[in-house]
Amino acid sequence: MQLPQPLRGIIPPVVTPLAGRDALDYSGLERLLERIIAAGCHGIFVLGSTGEAQALSYRLRLEMVRETCRLVGNRVPVLAGITDTALVESLEFGHACANAGISGLVAAAPYYFRMTQSDLLRHAESLATELPLPIYLYNIPGLTKLSYDAETVAEAAKIPGIAGLKDSSGDLIYLQRVLRLTSFRPDFSVLVGPEEVLGQAMMLGAHGGVSGGANLRPELYVKLWCAAEQKRYDEVVSLGRRVMELSDALYRVGDPSTSYFRGIKYALEADGVCSGLPAAPLAPFTEPEKQIIRGWLAR
Amino acid sequence: MQLPQPLRGIIPPVVTPLAGRDALDYSGLERLLERIIAAGCHGIFVLGSTGEAQALSYRLRLEMVRETCRLVGNRVPVLAGITDTALVESLEFGHACANAGISGLVAAAPYYFRMTQSDLLRHAESLATELPLPIYLYNIPGLTKLSYDAETVAEAAKIPGIAGLKDSSGDLIYLQRVLRLTSFRPDFSVLVGPEEVLGQAMMLGAHGGVSGGANLRPELYVKLWCAAEQKRYDEVVSLGRRVMELSDALYRVGDPSTSYFRGIKYALEADGVCSGLPAAPLAPFTEPEKQIIRGWLAR
Amino acid sequence: MQLPQPLRGIIPPVVTPLAGRDALDYSGLERLLERIIAAGCHGIFVLGSTGEAQALSYRLRLEMVRETCRLVGNRVPVLAGITDTALVESLEFGHACANAGISGLVAAAPYYFRMTQSDLLRHAESLATELPLPIYLYNIPGLTKLSYDAETVAEAAKIPGIAGLKDSSGDLIYLQRVLRLTSFRPDFSVLVGPEEVLGQAMMLGAHGGVSGGANLRPELYVKLWCAAEQKRYDEVVSLGRRVMELSDALYRVGDPSTSYFRGIKYALEADGVCSGLPAAPLAPFTEPEKQIIRGWLAR
Amino acid sequence: MQLPQPLRGIIPPVVTPLAGRDALDYSGLERLLERIIAAGCHGIFVLGSTGEAQALSYRLRLEMVRETCRLVGNRVPVLAGITDTALVESLEFGHACANAGISGLVAAAPYYFRMTQSDLLRHAESLATELPLPIYLYNIPGLTKLSYDAETVAEAAKIPGIAGLKDSSGDLIYLQRVLRLTSFRPDFSVLVGPEEVLGQAMMLGAHGGVSGGANLRPELYVKLWCAAEQKRYDEVVSLGRRVMELSDALYRVGDPSTSYFRGIKYALEADGVCSGLPAAPLAPFTEPEKQIIRGWLAR
Repeated sequence: MQLPQPLRGIIPPVVTPLAGRDALDYSGLERLLERIIAAGCHGIFVLGSTGEAQALSYRLRLEMVRETCRLVGNRVPVLAGITDTALVESLEFGHACANAGISGLVAAAPYYFRMTQSDLLRHAESLATELPLPIYLYNIPGLTKLSYDAETVAEAAKIPGIAGLKDSSGDLIYLQRVLRLTSFRPDFSVLVGPEEVLGQAMMLGAHGGVSGGANLRPELYVKLWCAAEQKRYDEVVSLGRRVMELSDALYRVGDPSTSYFRGIKYALEADGVCSGLPAAPLAPFTEPEKQIIRGWLAR
Repeated sequence: MQLPQPLRGIIPPVVTPLAGRDALDYSGLERLLERIIAAGCHGIFVLGSTGEAQALSYRLRLEMVRETCRLVGNRVPVLAGITDTALVESLEFGHACANAGISGLVAAAPYYFRMTQSDLLRHAESLATELPLPIYLYNIPGLTKLSYDAETVAEAAKIPGIAGLKDSSGDLIYLQRVLRLTSFRPDFSVLVGPEEVLGQAMMLGAHGGVSGGANLRPELYVKLWCAAEQKRYDEVVSLGRRVMELSDALYRVGDPSTSYFRGIKYALEADGVCSGLPAAPLAPFTEPEKQIIRGWLAR
Repeated sequence: MQLPQPLRGIIPPVVTPLAGRDALDYSGLERLLERIIAAGCHGIFVLGSTGEAQALSYRLRLEMVRETCRLVGNRVPVLAGITDTALVESLEFGHACANAGISGLVAAAPYYFRMTQSDLLRHAESLATELPLPIYLYNIPGLTKLSYDAETVAEAAKIPGIAGLKDSSGDLIYLQRVLRLTSFRPDFSVLVGPEEVLGQAMMLGAHGGVSGGANLRPELYVKLWCAAEQKRYDEVVSLGRRVMELSDALYRVGDPSTSYFRGIKYALEADGVCSGLPAAPLAPFTEPEKQIIRGWLAR
Repeated sequence: MQLPQPLRGIIPPVVTPLAGRDALDYSGLERLLERIIAAGCHGIFVLGSTGEAQALSYRLRLEMVRETCRLVGNRVPVLAGITDTALVESLEFGHACANAGISGLVAAAPYYFRMTQSDLLRHAESLATELPLPIYLYNIPGLTKLSYDAETVAEAAKIPGIAGLKDSSGDLIYLQRVLRLTSFRPDFSVLVGPEEVLGQAMMLGAHGGVSGGANLRPELYVKLWCAAEQKRYDEVVSLGRRVMELSDALYRVGDPSTSYFRGIKYALEADGVCSGLPAAPLAPFTEPEKQIIRGWLAR
């Protein structure tokens, strides 16, 4: 499926529903995807950070890719994360994704060794040159501890095959610099990670959001995107307030270093969508933590 | 080959000599290993950070494991790094290492997601319980951005199968706390990463070093270890000074974020040992950078 | 002069024009203040970070306070920074400010020792209880390395005398949490530091901005504030773009760790407003750096 | 009193005993100093981090300087911290210290604004040129968030008046680099902050320690220093173990961000030496925390 360029809209970073340590929850995945598609989301992104990709075996990752492509069919484009610390692994998995029917690939910086902006650019160039699908760079310094400078993104935007940036830095000054420096490429897509600033990012020129909460309430994020797209800013503000409420209620229960992942997964379980089992070594919520989530969902 | 418990001595974290992006430099590896064994090192550690494991394909990592086991035979024990962000991948690779003849496994913290000390402990327990070889935890917060608290190491030391800690934090206060808190396990090995404090760490009770420079000058590090073991501290000081000279001369050329890896590999090439090609996306040294290295080696 | 509660509008954090290491540029200060008042700014903030307070002697700080109060008269309220690592110094200077005619005080976290949120709250309470003027907390973790949690701000908002927060974190998720948690105090003012997200912060409910660029182009920031206040968002976007241009052009010349301070001061000198001398130990721009600034101003 | 060059020995960073928020505990200070001098310490350092200088008023700081000089007389040299974010304040206080009879001054990096190594060097040069006493630089990146590069220290060592470095980084690789790069100045003193690595630092060439624990057990640190000086390394190891025990027992009670300061002060109170009141905004220990300290002291 050909990706629109620039890619626009709400592309939820779907969780990977787990039936066990190395097993997919098939029916949960189906329910998850159907809800997202029914709500009008513009694409699906598997194996991002919200998808806990780094904590899953490659066997399971490929199964997730194939199953998602099969379930989604040609209804919306599917993107897949190929982030790895080893270029050769990213390339190999990228080819497997292409064979499975994926429409675009997302790659964060290799996240173990320290490196320079030139190294990051060289890595991006290898991916774009050797892989048959559009590549979206993924800036998530909070987890990779490496950041693509805005100038590096602009250099990367000169490479055919680099189709956009997903920015999860939460830094709207950076986002504006990226937008300005890549404006020579009208087909370059800039998507924002943190859903709590989705409306503001779009006001500044971003094309959409990779919003974790769209796993749970996809229609809310689609509405917010439409409102921002049509410059109905009063609605952007009121819908954004609902996003903040969801974020405060579901992503901040228990230990803060893992509360986002455990919260979103358990909320999906409590909602009857899919298994809430987090990937090892994270533990599921305790019963009191679960009650907090259920309490909010019941309102 | 059975590992002595506690494991003691100089166990060089060998570089992975590359003939290409995904190809091993066989004869280089052989020369490298023979020099190390001839110098009296007490073991070999493949696929650590110095081995650039995270930047290599799993195919190449397994080849490196097998080839090293074949070349070393039963002359000294070989340890292998199984660090991965995914438990299932670490387990699978751990089993493959056991089948290839590896004697012990080394695992750093999963290095992408944030997690708690309980999560780190649970991860260590899974490795120790499910793998058939002794596990050495590997504390390297500079790269993993997660640190095993000294108390967590002490908890882990209660798990049969956890055989020791390699500490690359460079923090000798932490090292002392670990030594004290694990003293209930006389067979628990504490090895120090940064070679520049090897003598001091041993004075404080560490059992040996995983010294990168032992790729280059294995006899220097073996001498230093023997001097420390026999409490000949004047010699520890003078040999330690030579280690600092090597470190300053070879690990600080060019961009500081990558200079250690590029320096050690090019020095081995300049010495005629093996290929100096760093793993992608790092670039080899420029000619002026190479000259600085060659200049020092020539002295 | 009584402060409106909540305080709203553009309150420029004025630079401290220096005639020498410990001497004020009086006529420069007068020109600076007159331009700001003429442009319709809603207040003046002296001795913030942009005012280089921490790098100035207390003698000079008090002179700056007195001279500004004298020059401004009762045309707009003047706020002053009393941030210090020592509570007693902050209190003493706060009293001196009150005597000089200051209308409100601004205090960042004590910025040397590490401390807990309870310690920060206790510090805020001491200031609010012992000083006769409204206190605005100032969250600037990039410089103080301590952050007021949103929950701590909410606790502080229960203390009479704590009148608001200036947030320079640049984190709009945090800003939203603060706004929600302090909503029980309709007179509590939330002002945003980084001018590059002023429009977005106001859309989310912030009351105004402490915008460094308003030293240079006060009318631009007042216009932007009015547009945001009146929900003319197309104008917010286009004016915000001009702010980003100014920021990119003037705050990013030379070494990035000091470019903001050196840039804003030299631009004022080049514009004929006041001396561009930065406080010791910063050095003035080199001639080539100055040319870059002049080049942009000339356009 | 003329300082030996290089300055050698144990120079305790004395706490500032407080009778109230802005009042000195005179008799406590006297007891504290007498114990230290009686134990054979080689100097006294007031108004360092352990002395909570940054949390004290300048009035109290000067009182502490004067009272200490009066009490110590010419028995041992007294050094004083003049660290401030404002050069003019450091200079003024430095002159006041000289008038009070201080023998040497200690200056950490200005700790609010970010700056370059050139700025740090320029700052050091101003202090050394304009003040009449020897200046010791103080590297404490954990609190100042700025670090003097080893190369910067070497540059500073070329300035007459810069007499040494106190390094509290805890990084013994850095310490070795400093020692090597300043070896052209045989009168340049390198003192180590963290007492837990005092023996190791001296083995590497450091001249002594600014050991917080010497407030409590001065004779232990003097013994350790003598053992290291005379290369009795078995004794260095066993005494070092006692230092680690003290450190683990007294500096790790309660909240870790403030436990060092609260622990050392309360232990002095429990020992009957001086008031344990920490400087605002820190709170004294709770009763259960106090019991832990008393329990250890009783053994």
